[in-house]
Amino acid sequence: MRQMELKILSEGKVLSGDILKVGNFLNQQIDTDFLKSVADEIAKMFSDEGITKILTIESSGIALAIAAGMVMGVPVVFAKKHKSSNVDGEVYSTKVHSFTHGTDYNAVVSRDYLLQTDKVLLVDDFLASGNALKGLVELVAQAHAELAGAVVAIEKKYQGGGDALRDAGVRVEPLACIESMDEHEIRFCQL
Amino acid sequence: MRQMELKILSEGKVLSGDILKVGNFLNQQIDTDFLKSVADEIAKMFSDEGITKILTIESSGIALAIAAGMVMGVPVVFAKKHKSSNVDGEVYSTKVHSFTHGTDYNAVVSRDYLLQTDKVLLVDDFLASGNALKGLVELVAQAHAELAGAVVAIEKKYQGGGDALRDAGVRVEPLACIESMDEHEIRFCQL
Repeated sequence: MRQMELKILSEGKVLSGDILKVGNFLNQQIDTDFLKSVADEIAKMFSDEGITKILTIESSGIALAIAAGMVMGVPVVFAKKHKSSNVDGEVYSTKVHSFTHGTDYNAVVSRDYLLQTDKVLLVDDFLASGNALKGLVELVAQAHAELAGAVVAIEKKYQGGGDALRDAGVRVEPLACIESMDEHEIRFCQL
Repeated sequence: MRQMELKILSEGKVLSGDILKVGNFLNQQIDTDFLKSVADEIAKMFSDEGITKILTIESSGIALAIAAGMVMGVPVVFAKKHKSSNVDGEVYSTKVHSFTHGTDYNAVVSRDYLLQTDKVLLVDDFLASGNALKGLVELVAQAHAELAGAVVAIEKKYQGGGDALRDAGVRVEPLACIESMDEHEIRFCQL
């Protein structure tokens, strides 16, 4: 999506430690007009798929998931992050390793909100090592629901998480895909 | 808002410990069509106020804030919760006591996202003791921005937080206001 690339180039900042700061429009301050355009694009990508539910994980994916859900007219479900694995039988749960924080957490969702009859679209803001998305894929599998694919605002392709998911048969659609970046230049993938 | 009251009566559950569970449509699973109606109502309430920004706090207020921001066409800013008070000079920060968890945290927002020229609407899901909202009011004051008021999906009036804010001159608009509740009955405020 050219609009996402332009937004990254004009408002994003590359910080040391391989961090792309997009707090200005995507993370901490949300440009809602831009978000609406992004949601329209997501709805178009998956318009023929009969999506019944969007699944995201708290908290940075919520804004994009809600916008997409409003445009597509489907409910949005949040997986929650729990430190403890001590969860009862009323939830689906899977362990996720956070590359950013170097710790593990459990992604948890109530069984009531993910049904066998659902066709699920995963939505998140960043895709890097792909651990969070892999966790959501696992939750969908535990529910015996159907997975339509995953949309992410920004994929850092060089971290390999997106391609690992594609190799596993998941349709992964980034709205912007970064081939490489440093403080001087951001290069987008040639699609 | 009668629609919110009906939704609470039909899908909410009162649990022990004074907990109203609305995960089914407001918290963990979001009914996006309903959310759109709620956002329309919020936009109508504050249509004459010249709102330039919506401020919420992660993560349960994000969905409602994003929906309202999309309808009103204004940016949404998230205050973040930090355990440490060791924050740099680039942020506004205030200590908040979490009644639910019995701990303190710092509500933090970047100075870049809250400007003196802003007219700010606060949005959150629940208003009980009011500590989170009081923290957001303080952040707006630190930025010397103008406060238009606060919208909450559900006010638990008997916990007093809403009236304390009103006494301090803040316009507080609940979409549903609960006078009392137990496992057998939820009573709404007479407005």
